[in-house]
Amino acid sequence: MKIDMIICGDYVTTEAVRNATVIVVDVLRATSVIITALNNGAKSVVPVTSVEEALSTKKKLESVVLGGERRAQKIEGFDLSNSPLEYKREVIHDRNVVITTTNGTKAISKSSAANKIYIGALLNAKAVSSKAIKNERDIIIVNAGTNGVFSMDDFITGGAIIDELLSEQEYELTDIAKTALVIYRGHRDIKSYVKGAAHYKILVDLGLEEDIDYCLQKDLFNIVPEYKDGIIKLS
Amino acid sequence: MKIDMIICGDYVTTEAVRNATVIVVDVLRATSVIITALNNGAKSVVPVTSVEEALSTKKKLESVVLGGERRAQKIEGFDLSNSPLEYKREVIHDRNVVITTTNGTKAISKSSAANKIYIGALLNAKAVSSKAIKNERDIIIVNAGTNGVFSMDDFITGGAIIDELLSEQEYELTDIAKTALVIYRGHRDIKSYVKGAAHYKILVDLGLEEDIDYCLQKDLFNIVPEYKDGIIKLS
Repeated sequence: MKIDMIICGDYVTTEAVRNATVIVVDVLRATSVIITALNNGAKSVVPVTSVEEALSTKKKLESVVLGGERRAQKIEGFDLSNSPLEYKREVIHDRNVVITTTNGTKAISKSSAANKIYIGALLNAKAVSSKAIKNERDIIIVNAGTNGVFSMDDFITGGAIIDELLSEQEYELTDIAKTALVIYRGHRDIKSYVKGAAHYKILVDLGLEEDIDYCLQKDLFNIVPEYKDGIIKLS
Repeated sequence: MKIDMIICGDYVTTEAVRNATVIVVDVLRATSVIITALNNGAKSVVPVTSVEEALSTKKKLESVVLGGERRAQKIEGFDLSNSPLEYKREVIHDRNVVITTTNGTKAISKSSAANKIYIGALLNAKAVSSKAIKNERDIIIVNAGTNGVFSMDDFITGGAIIDELLSEQEYELTDIAKTALVIYRGHRDIKSYVKGAAHYKILVDLGLEEDIDYCLQKDLFNIVPEYKDGIIKLS
């Protein structure tokens, strides 16, 4: 079996992901937010691509918390931004979180032809790898990227997940998957590489370094969110 | 000014390359062939995308040598394959070389909205960098890739060219350009990284390791081919 990687949401095609196991990664910060919310007791996370869709989804569901960002900042009228630190148990326990983010939610919705879609980040790298292996198919890591382009933070996270996958089972790796692994193995201090990312600079300039440090923690949680029929729940 | 990289020919858009200085890289082996042919006295190299176009172009030009490959092997009825070692002075001096290759010629033709299109490989990494800097625009390295996907051999070659560019001038680097540079600087023994490439394995299996060793030589030539109006000549 094979491991491949798609370097940004814009490059995902139905043909490329069909029947595969997909792991969607948007480490700074959408998939880290989703993992945190479900770990802290959210009933579900519903990813939507527009603010309008978020507002209309709120009307259809009970007990909704609205979260997300545009240009890395909170959306007017929303309850929470895209900071994982805001998704505390007391705020989201037993509630449905509707989120819209620039890159992450697009990558998830474009992967819908896959056999399984798991949500991955450094926070659950080991757990999502073990789960993906059990599905016994080719694995495609779909990086959200930043504004339609390759993003270093997602790339090294993909490398960390591939490292975990290979620790459990042999796979054939495509050139891009191999390169992500080389980058991860050369930068076990993940931040030393992520510091070069354009997205890193944007978040630091907005005073969000604490978010970055949180998201770069590996294997903090042993849970795996799964996207199915438009909704993300613990699998 | 900025340096960006497009990881395979399929991802090139008119919008992305418009007005920029493009360096097209297909190190194994199309751009290495083009550089070698012009270094050995070819009058011009005409890249075409199909075998039919190659044959019809031959009728229009004088003193043509037909070269190229499909599935890395010589095309029936052609004079030369895609091995740079065949493009000897005695064979191609003062002649027009018409070539069609799977990945390289597509990457060149898709870049035609650029301000300048230079042909790069390891063989002329330093020379192509110096020439590109003089054009005083954003530089986009367009990797041919292999069969529509990222290829490790082109990626590290792009990294080597970026290293040369930065030795002469400061540039802002995109995340993908930075990552190619990290890979090159971590693998000055270029073959140690290229050995992992799927494309490497294909060529070795066909007995073409000598070609690879030739193409991985850095700065063997101080020449820069330029593509203009469908024809590649020394600039």
